[in-house]
Amino acid sequence: MATVEELKLRVRELENELIKCKQKQCAMEDALHRPKIDKMSAEVVDSNPYSRLMALKRMGVVEDYEKIRTFTVAVVGVGGVGSVTAEMLTRCGIGKLLLFDYDKVELANMNRLFFQPHQAGLSKVEAAELTLRNINPDVLFETHNYNITTMENFTHFMDRISHGGLEEGSPVDLVLSCVDNFEARMAINTACNELGQIWMESGVSENAVSGHIQLIIPGETACFACAPPLVVAANIDEKTLKREGVCAASLPTTMGVVAGLLVQNVLKYLLKFGSVSYYLGYNAMQDFFPTMAMKANPQCNDRHCRRQQEEYNKKEAQRPKVEVVEVEEDVVHEDNEWGIELVSETTDADLQAASGTMPDLPEGITVAYTIPAAQDTTNGETVEETEQSLEDLMAQMRKL
Amino acid sequence: MATVEELKLRVRELENELIKCKQKQCAMEDALHRPKIDKMSAEVVDSNPYSRLMALKRMGVVEDYEKIRTFTVAVVGVGGVGSVTAEMLTRCGIGKLLLFDYDKVELANMNRLFFQPHQAGLSKVEAAELTLRNINPDVLFETHNYNITTMENFTHFMDRISHGGLEEGSPVDLVLSCVDNFEARMAINTACNELGQIWMESGVSENAVSGHIQLIIPGETACFACAPPLVVAANIDEKTLKREGVCAASLPTTMGVVAGLLVQNVLKYLLKFGSVSYYLGYNAMQDFFPTMAMKANPQCNDRHCRRQQEEYNKKEAQRPKVEVVEVEEDVVHEDNEWGIELVSETTDADLQAASGTMPDLPEGITVAYTIPAAQDTTNGETVEETEQSLEDLMAQMRKL
Repeated sequence: MATVEELKLRVRELENELIKCKQKQCAMEDALHRPKIDKMSAEVVDSNPYSRLMALKRMGVVEDYEKIRTFTVAVVGVGGVGSVTAEMLTRCGIGKLLLFDYDKVELANMNRLFFQPHQAGLSKVEAAELTLRNINPDVLFETHNYNITTMENFTHFMDRISHGGLEEGSPVDLVLSCVDNFEARMAINTACNELGQIWMESGVSENAVSGHIQLIIPGETACFACAPPLVVAANIDEKTLKREGVCAASLPTTMGVVAGLLVQNVLKYLLKFGSVSYYLGYNAMQDFFPTMAMKANPQCNDRHCRRQQEEYNKKEAQRPKVEVVEVEEDVVHEDNEWGIELVSETTDADLQAASGTMPDLPEGITVAYTIPAAQDTTNGETVEETEQSLEDLMAQMRKL
Repeated sequence: MATVEELKLRVRELENELIKCKQKQCAMEDALHRPKIDKMSAEVVDSNPYSRLMALKRMGVVEDYEKIRTFTVAVVGVGGVGSVTAEMLTRCGIGKLLLFDYDKVELANMNRLFFQPHQAGLSKVEAAELTLRNINPDVLFETHNYNITTMENFTHFMDRISHGGLEEGSPVDLVLSCVDNFEARMAINTACNELGQIWMESGVSENAVSGHIQLIIPGETACFACAPPLVVAANIDEKTLKREGVCAASLPTTMGVVAGLLVQNVLKYLLKFGSVSYYLGYNAMQDFFPTMAMKANPQCNDRHCRRQQEEYNKKEAQRPKVEVVEVEEDVVHEDNEWGIELVSETTDADLQAASGTMPDLPEGITVAYTIPAAQDTTNGETVEETEQSLEDLMAQMRKL
C-alpha cells in the first residue's frame, strides 16, 4: 500500500511529465506559425520573407510590388494545378485567396505537388488553407467546399466572385479556372460573362504531356462558348473513370509548369509588367509552346457574351482616335461563319512539327481536348491540341 | 492537507491526461508516415499513390514506367529550383536521390515553393529529406551538407557521383545542377567531364524573369568550359550581396517553371519518351522559349572534355554507317575559331522580339548571364540571354 509521501512524489512526477508533454505540443504548434507582417519590407535580412520579391522593384521589373496585397484572386479547383497556383500566389503575398473545390485529398494525388500523405481524407480546400496559412499568415483565405455546377452553389459562387474582394462587397480581381472537366469550365464561363469578370483558364491533357493557359476578357477575347473549345479536357467525370478501373495520367512536372506559367501571367496582369499571353500552350514531348489570340464571336451562344461584346464595341468606338488609323482593330474577320480571328504567332510548320503521335487509349478516355457537340456534350470528337488549324476545326464544326 | 484518497484520485487523473497527451503526439507523428510500397501498381484506387503515373503506360506515353525505381539522380543545390526538382522526382517515385547543399533554410526563402517557415534554421538538405521522406518513403535519400567547391568536399562529391548509385559502387544516372553561382557550376562541369557523367544545368536570372535548362553530354555537346557561358548566373556570391544590403530577385513562378521543365526532361531522358531538349530558355516577360544545341569545342580548356571528345569521335567513327550519308554530323563548324556550332530553332527576329528592356541595376548586380573573362572571373560583361547571336558573342570574346 502506497504511503502519502510516495503518492505525493508520483503526483509531482506525473505533473512534470505532463508539463513537458504539453510544452512539446505547444512547440510543435508554435513552430508552424510565423507572426503576421504589417508592411512589406525590402530589407535584405534572412528573416524577411518578402526581400526577394521587393527586389523586383530595384531590378526594374515591377514598379510597385506592394500593390500585390491589394488584390483578390479566386482559384476554382484545388487539384494538381490549382493547389500549386494557390501556393505560388500565397508565397508572392497576394491579398486574399478564394478557394473552391468539393474533392477530398487521396493518396492517389501524391504524384502531384502540394498535398502530403497525412492530409489524406481531409477536404482539399481545408487541407490547402491549413498549409497556406502556415506558409504565409499575411494572406486572407476564404474557402468553399462545394461543387460550383449545382444551381444553388452556382448562385453562391456568382455572389462570392462579385462581392468577395478584399473589401467585402467589392468583386475579386481575377478568377482562375484550374478545374478538370467541361461542366465546371462552362459554369465559370457563364458566371464571368454575366459579371464581365476577367478570368484565366488552365488545363492539362489526360495523357499528362500537354497543357495550356488562356486569358478571357468578356466581350473582347473569345469566351469558352465563342470558339470550338480547343482547350477543353475530355468530358468524362472522375467517378466514371474510377468505376471503369481507368484513370487519366498526370505528372507533377506538367502541372507545375502550367501552374507556373499561369501565376506568372497573373502577376504580369495584376502588377502590369511584361506582356500577358492570350493563349499559351505547352507540349512536353517536344518542349514546344504555341501562342495565339482569338477575338470574341458575335454569334456566340452565350447572350451575356454578346452583351459584353456590344458594350466593348461601344466603348471602343467612343475612344478618341489618337493614332493615325487603328488598323482594322474592330473589323470582324469574315473568312469563317463564326467570325473568329485566329492570330497565331507560330507557323503551320511549327504546329505540325509539335504534334505528337496519338497514343492508343482505352475506351472512355480521349487524349487531349474535345469539341463537344452543341447539345450532346458527352460525345465530343477528339482533337490533338496543336494538330489542327482553326480552319480544320471550322470544317469539322460545319459537318456536325 | 491531502488525504491518500485525494492523492490517488489526482494520480489517476494525471495518468489519464498524460496518456491522452502521448496518444495525440503519436497520432501527430503517425500521420506523417505512410507505409512503404514494394511494387508499383497501376490499380485505380484512391489509396494508390502511383496510379496516375502508371497510367502513362496505358496512355502510350511511357513504355515501362516502373523503371523509374532503378534510377539514381544527384541534385546539387537544394534552393528554389533544386528543392522543387527533388520534390517532383520524389513524387514520381525515383529510386534514389543524392542531395548536396550547405545552406540553411531562412524566412527569406519563403517566396519560393517547398520550404516552410517552421523549417527556418535547419540545413536545407536535412529539412528537404524530412519533407521528402514523408511524401514518399519508397525513395532512398543520401544527403551531404557541404560546399562542393572546396578541395576535400569536391573529392568526396566526385566519389559519390561515381559510386553513390542505387547499387552502392555504381555511378548515379544523372547529375542536376541547381546551383546559383559560377564556381559551383564549374565544379560540377569539371567532375562530370572527368567522369564522363551526363548532367543537366539549370539557372534563373537575377531579375527573376528568365531561366534555362541545358543537357550536357561530355565529349558530345558543349560543356560549361567549351562555350562562352551564355547561361551563367552573375558571379557574385550571396554573402557579398547581403553585405551590400542588396539581393537578387526571385519568384516561385519562374523557379517552378524551370524545375518543371528540368524534371520533365529528366523523365524523358531516363524513361525514353519524347525528345530531350539540349538547351531550352524561358523568357517570362514575353512567354518565349528559345531552343538550341551546341557541339563540344575541340579547343576547350578542360583537358577531360577534350579527352571525352576524342573518345566520342572514335566511337562515332567506328559506328557502322547504315544510312545513306550522315550529313556533316561530325564536321567541325569552321566559321568561328572556337569551333562551336550553334543550331538555333528560333529566328533572329524571334530572338530580337523576345529581348526585354534592360533594367536599371544597382552596382554589383548584373541582369542575366555573364561572360567571365578568361582569368578574372569577377568582372564579366553582361549579356541579356536572348539578345545576342553567337556571332556577336564571338566578336565580344575576340575583343577581350
